[in-house]
Amino acid sequence: MSILIKNVEANGQKVDIAIVGNRIESIAKSIDGTYDDAIDGSHLLAMPPFYNAHTHAAMTLLRGYADDLELMDWLNNHIWPAEAKLTPDDIYWGTKLACLEMIRSGTVFFSDMYFSPQQILKAVEESGLRAAIGLTVLEASPNREAHRRDNLEMLERKAELPSRVQLSIAPHAIYTVSDKGLRMSAELAEREDITLNIHVAETETEVAQCKEAHNGMTPVEYLADLGVLTSRTVAAHSVHLSEHDIELYRERGVVAVFNPVSNLKLCSGLFKFHRLHDAGCRIAIGTDGTSSNNNLSMFDERKTAAMGGTLSPGGPFGATAGEIFHCATRGGAEAFGIDAGVLEPGRLADIVLYDLDNPMLTPNYNAVSNMVYSADSSCVDTVICDGQVLMRHRVVPWAEETVAHARECARKFVG
Amino acid sequence: MSILIKNVEANGQKVDIAIVGNRIESIAKSIDGTYDDAIDGSHLLAMPPFYNAHTHAAMTLLRGYADDLELMDWLNNHIWPAEAKLTPDDIYWGTKLACLEMIRSGTVFFSDMYFSPQQILKAVEESGLRAAIGLTVLEASPNREAHRRDNLEMLERKAELPSRVQLSIAPHAIYTVSDKGLRMSAELAEREDITLNIHVAETETEVAQCKEAHNGMTPVEYLADLGVLTSRTVAAHSVHLSEHDIELYRERGVVAVFNPVSNLKLCSGLFKFHRLHDAGCRIAIGTDGTSSNNNLSMFDERKTAAMGGTLSPGGPFGATAGEIFHCATRGGAEAFGIDAGVLEPGRLADIVLYDLDNPMLTPNYNAVSNMVYSADSSCVDTVICDGQVLMRHRVVPWAEETVAHARECARKFVG
Repeated sequence: MSILIKNVEANGQKVDIAIVGNRIESIAKSIDGTYDDAIDGSHLLAMPPFYNAHTHAAMTLLRGYADDLELMDWLNNHIWPAEAKLTPDDIYWGTKLACLEMIRSGTVFFSDMYFSPQQILKAVEESGLRAAIGLTVLEASPNREAHRRDNLEMLERKAELPSRVQLSIAPHAIYTVSDKGLRMSAELAEREDITLNIHVAETETEVAQCKEAHNGMTPVEYLADLGVLTSRTVAAHSVHLSEHDIELYRERGVVAVFNPVSNLKLCSGLFKFHRLHDAGCRIAIGTDGTSSNNNLSMFDERKTAAMGGTLSPGGPFGATAGEIFHCATRGGAEAFGIDAGVLEPGRLADIVLYDLDNPMLTPNYNAVSNMVYSADSSCVDTVICDGQVLMRHRVVPWAEETVAHARECARKFVG
Repeated sequence: MSILIKNVEANGQKVDIAIVGNRIESIAKSIDGTYDDAIDGSHLLAMPPFYNAHTHAAMTLLRGYADDLELMDWLNNHIWPAEAKLTPDDIYWGTKLACLEMIRSGTVFFSDMYFSPQQILKAVEESGLRAAIGLTVLEASPNREAHRRDNLEMLERKAELPSRVQLSIAPHAIYTVSDKGLRMSAELAEREDITLNIHVAETETEVAQCKEAHNGMTPVEYLADLGVLTSRTVAAHSVHLSEHDIELYRERGVVAVFNPVSNLKLCSGLFKFHRLHDAGCRIAIGTDGTSSNNNLSMFDERKTAAMGGTLSPGGPFGATAGEIFHCATRGGAEAFGIDAGVLEPGRLADIVLYDLDNPMLTPNYNAVSNMVYSADSSCVDTVICDGQVLMRHRVVPWAEETVAHARECARKFVG
């Protein structure tokens, strides 16, 4: 399979982009030759796509199910009882709906933490997206043994997975997984050469309880002590970090995942973007699940991220558009070892084509500023992932079927 | 002109909606009869549109022109020199581009503060939108006399304006208009029966300088003292308010305009949503101009508004989706005396039809929650304002021409 995109704006110039297999073959003023597919880029802007570094995709089925409630009421009386009703089929359609929403909003990868990884894999394979499928560990769950079997079965299939799908071991958090479980997760990540996906220091309560239970250690210090803090670690939220925690992140090469909307919606606190950035830490951006957001559009994240920065220590002028765009694209790709996030020959062919006739992208003085502060999903015209066109001129072939099935699955939560 | 919308979801039910002239004639299970136009609503959700209570529309031409700069550098070295180059033709096309962007994102009204009101009127009339066109007073401007002549000429034409267009007197702020100018503005608002549109207490500096200059009075107290604080007053930003200021707002019926994105992007501070809301003050929502946003989508505002609430005094759980949706729709309409913002017979026919097959609106447990936390402009299918269809199935007939002209106008700011 090969694609030629003609006369498109990319990296500030009008160019042609040739894709062969799953890589960008060349970017040049004028490319001739025979390609299987051609895209007229004359009204389009080519940009790297978004890489969503932390979500719980199947929770799309609970979008708007229970909002504006106090956290424990929300969890105990709404979310957990609802989640207990989810069947494997629900998880498949919920994930498929998430894939559709992400493609439509210019995202080509997501790092997921949920259950029924086989169903998630099926949705990812069919959608054409990249993903890191979390093998979730939640020791308190009544389904703990079933989860364990699912995870082991997925690990056995690891060698057969397409190159765009990776696994990660996903111990949920320090307060839901024992020290033994955390240590084993870290060993498994090392042995299997995969990332470790965990919620860290999301709330003040988590930090206080950790200090109480573990000789005054912060969650980050506790994880370091257990050997869980390495360059494989992708630490979602990472809101309440001490200066020593930040130093540990930098030293070990941990990826901190900024979840701007979720942190505000759940009143978790303000991510210390400036401190982490200035210390040279690796930063990616994620949407978290729809129940704390309530969408999977990285456009909502990027604007909230840039503005949330204005309130964070080290302000006052927040994160710049360029810094946030980097974290949402290349920062996310690099966190998961994906050779993309920048448009240049030899890289994996992940490209979003934006509609330059959309008023939100007019005028076009600064494409990155428009991406971060102005665009929304309506600006996304065409999405290419791993050399395949997933959406062309806003059409995703399997959209209608997916929305209808997801709607059907959601009926059980009403009345 | 009459329209029949068949089989649409509205107010939680499947109904037909009949529009005759510029009003909703009836909403019922099944409506028959002859109408000039028919819309199949079977995959659509009817909701009240957004009313943008504060913007500077023509500044779309400066979208992304100079971001992430320190405020005074931004104003002195970029925005003001650029604005000095704007011709009346630029203001016409910039406003037209703004109208297009607002229609595409479900907004049917904007309260504007800019110059060349004749050009703004032309764009508004052609677009079909509602507007309150600000007759701006900025005494320090070198073009002060020309502005005065423009404003007087507009007032002379007031009786001929279409019913969907109103004027407002718009003294820019207490630090750019003298006490005499402010008093005269208030008298004019009373005499002409129009609103008074002003920036109030946007920054801490404004408050400190006002106290210094005016015997310890806050900007709100100073305006009250001058007779400027009435139920005609629409007070943009209103960030730094004392308890006494809030009491004055409630007592006089002032409308406080929440500008969530701008307040964060310019680091102005956090709007006291809870305090104003609990005190029973009138609240509307606005985007401010694109140069401090950088789009005119009320979808970005509503989510930031709900979340910004989580950080404001009186939290922790922020504004609810219902509160924010009310402010962005009915609250805005009522602030400008527009008999709309709710779907019921007899009201002005302002309706947005949303695409229920958009993944962002799936599932549809709670339409208001989906509007506030999930939807973006891609969900807007059709927009009806004052009984006229302005966008049908995402097509605005004059879109292409407008984007092309606005792009042309913007060329002078490059290089």
